[in-house]
Amino acid sequence: MRQFECINGEMVIGGIPATKIADKFGTPVYVTDESALRENFRRINKAFSRHMPTHIHYACKANTNLAILRILKQEGSYIDAVSIGEVETCLRAGFSPDRIMFTGVCVSTKELEAVVSKGVLINIDSFSEMKRLAGIKSRIPISIRVNPDVGAGHHDHVVTGSRKSKFGIPLADILKAYSESLDLGLIPVGLHAHIGAGVQEIDPFVKVTDVLVSIAKEIEEKLRIELEFIDIGGGIGIPYKPDEKPMDVDLLAQEVTARIKAGCSVETVAIEPGRYIVADTTVLLTKVVDIKETPEKNFACIDAGFNTLIRPSFYGSYHHIAVANKFDASGEVIYDVVGPICESGDFLARDRLLPKLNEGDVIAVYDAGAYGFSMSSQYNSRPRCREVLVYNGTANIIREMETIDDILRHQRIPSRLMV
Amino acid sequence: MRQFECINGEMVIGGIPATKIADKFGTPVYVTDESALRENFRRINKAFSRHMPTHIHYACKANTNLAILRILKQEGSYIDAVSIGEVETCLRAGFSPDRIMFTGVCVSTKELEAVVSKGVLINIDSFSEMKRLAGIKSRIPISIRVNPDVGAGHHDHVVTGSRKSKFGIPLADILKAYSESLDLGLIPVGLHAHIGAGVQEIDPFVKVTDVLVSIAKEIEEKLRIELEFIDIGGGIGIPYKPDEKPMDVDLLAQEVTARIKAGCSVETVAIEPGRYIVADTTVLLTKVVDIKETPEKNFACIDAGFNTLIRPSFYGSYHHIAVANKFDASGEVIYDVVGPICESGDFLARDRLLPKLNEGDVIAVYDAGAYGFSMSSQYNSRPRCREVLVYNGTANIIREMETIDDILRHQRIPSRLMV
Repeated sequence: MRQFECINGEMVIGGIPATKIADKFGTPVYVTDESALRENFRRINKAFSRHMPTHIHYACKANTNLAILRILKQEGSYIDAVSIGEVETCLRAGFSPDRIMFTGVCVSTKELEAVVSKGVLINIDSFSEMKRLAGIKSRIPISIRVNPDVGAGHHDHVVTGSRKSKFGIPLADILKAYSESLDLGLIPVGLHAHIGAGVQEIDPFVKVTDVLVSIAKEIEEKLRIELEFIDIGGGIGIPYKPDEKPMDVDLLAQEVTARIKAGCSVETVAIEPGRYIVADTTVLLTKVVDIKETPEKNFACIDAGFNTLIRPSFYGSYHHIAVANKFDASGEVIYDVVGPICESGDFLARDRLLPKLNEGDVIAVYDAGAYGFSMSSQYNSRPRCREVLVYNGTANIIREMETIDDILRHQRIPSRLMV
Repeated sequence: MRQFECINGEMVIGGIPATKIADKFGTPVYVTDESALRENFRRINKAFSRHMPTHIHYACKANTNLAILRILKQEGSYIDAVSIGEVETCLRAGFSPDRIMFTGVCVSTKELEAVVSKGVLINIDSFSEMKRLAGIKSRIPISIRVNPDVGAGHHDHVVTGSRKSKFGIPLADILKAYSESLDLGLIPVGLHAHIGAGVQEIDPFVKVTDVLVSIAKEIEEKLRIELEFIDIGGGIGIPYKPDEKPMDVDLLAQEVTARIKAGCSVETVAIEPGRYIVADTTVLLTKVVDIKETPEKNFACIDAGFNTLIRPSFYGSYHHIAVANKFDASGEVIYDVVGPICESGDFLARDRLLPKLNEGDVIAVYDAGAYGFSMSSQYNSRPRCREVLVYNGTANIIREMETIDDILRHQRIPSRLMV
């Protein structure tokens, strides 16, 4: 959780008072601090690359805004893409194909063909995908994703590395997969696993590294395959709550790289942080539009709901909340902070002690940069909101607000119904 | 759960084999049967209107496709709208303003002004909203939403009528609300409550009717207000599982209308079915793109995930699954039916006994007409899919597929980043 400046009782983001941003660009609005983004990337890149050659593959599903991708391109990032749409988005942001690895699941042949045509590295998730890929094009480098039987994460929904998940080639079949890839004329250059999302301990990453290193060693010895990289996947969590501590990425890097260097001859480590890079760069600003005091609860009714930020409703996630225009005021009243979607599951925060609120107050929802806009929807026919980038006191729109015309654009009424 | 015709081992929807629709329009695709839609509307309209004047307000948040709205307009429906976006969508589909009631929660003054300018009836959710409305325009008819302290529904997230929910004026304050509406120069004509969603028993509807009738009687006696209608809200569930039974809407109508007629002088009943009208009209067709057999599980990997249909992941909802091209084959293998979103929480069905599957098989996900497309997203940068309307053997596109350009349309990269 980032600390923000407080000037004259107001929250300041990237040199600009939050209320100014809210007034100028309207609410709800996602506001990203460019400096924070660059800092996060540099911190993790430095932590690993001082030990061995490192590729930081930004897991762009967390946030695919073109401006954010562009900044990370400038910083020297690689990309973890999970769909042809993400591949195309990253190409448009200026990434060259050799900086992108595609890791899909349930990949159709049509999507595979499209990804191959873009010239990006494909990380194979299943035997079927491998065979179908070889049918499209062989003599191309590939990576293979193993299901490492090491799972972790902030919610059942995001534990991807357990044996019961749909991801990757089962551990017991991984040698067979590399062997078959050779038979199919493919060129295996990488090995990948991903344990889950929002993991706050180092231990699961160490465990998965051990699994990957032992596989790499085994295929060196048995199949004479020398891999170029081991990719330990993503999943580094962040402290969403004020009392939580960030992961020590220096220690993580040290533990992971030491094991790779000691255990096999692979020379490059890849890692796929998404949340770690973007989550705390962004706050969601939203206005209090109604205050409801009932015998049971006090509701702060805001103009953002799970259409805008679904994580609290979907995963039960905690996002820290502050009142931007009462930034140094003490908590006085306990509120549920709820949105305009017509379901009681539409809340951004429950039972939070906040300064006494009034209509018009600006609420800042922290750590909204990852899985915020990227999971948003037009549910209840609400156009999606703006995104703004702030940098040293200037603010730029990086996504225009949608209109009702955008919601209606693709819809057609058959003429026979127009009578 | 609707029964579909089986011809030559194939599922047939509205006179067309499902595989033909999948091949012609691509997958995933939502396919709505116009006849089923008209039947559902007529059934519930008839059930109520034979007892007393009835307004069926279709709760359009379930499905705001313009063609579906147009059909319901032809059938004589009214509209329950929850946002200015829904109001505008329904106006474009041809509904006149006097057929639309707006019931918002967390309504901003800006949205309230926009709704007032459209001339639709406003159903007040809070004292603040009422005051702000009177500030915009008085001498207009309104309805008031009470929190009836009767809650029910298929998931905690959708129980809206309990005292701890954010919706409506607390029961204890409802007389004060009507009295204040008169003081503010507003003209109260209706009384509304909504208990929740996916309610499969009649009893909660009877209870809420009793609450509403006793309020109506009290305001007749104490405030001399004669309401035009009582609106018992929506929430009628449907049988998502093969062994469940549909609600007896004839019995529901009889119980509800008898109480209104006996207990007060209100002459019109309103009801707000959404799911009941559209859910079973629509199947989501999706193709098997990969089969994964692991020691733990068999996965049928399809081309639709929670980006396309979020209910299983979000609410844990059950949707019945059939194999459209093996429609009369017996179950042989137990599958998890999973999608292309990179989270293990991305599944449409778990542990289902299905005929042995092959890549290319067409999976039909039942009852996808309500909260299907309307809750869909572009998560993982996947463009949203087509919708098709079938009627007596003809099929029309009612929503074009999105492209990557649609996903990128509103994004901007500040020029200083283009170096």
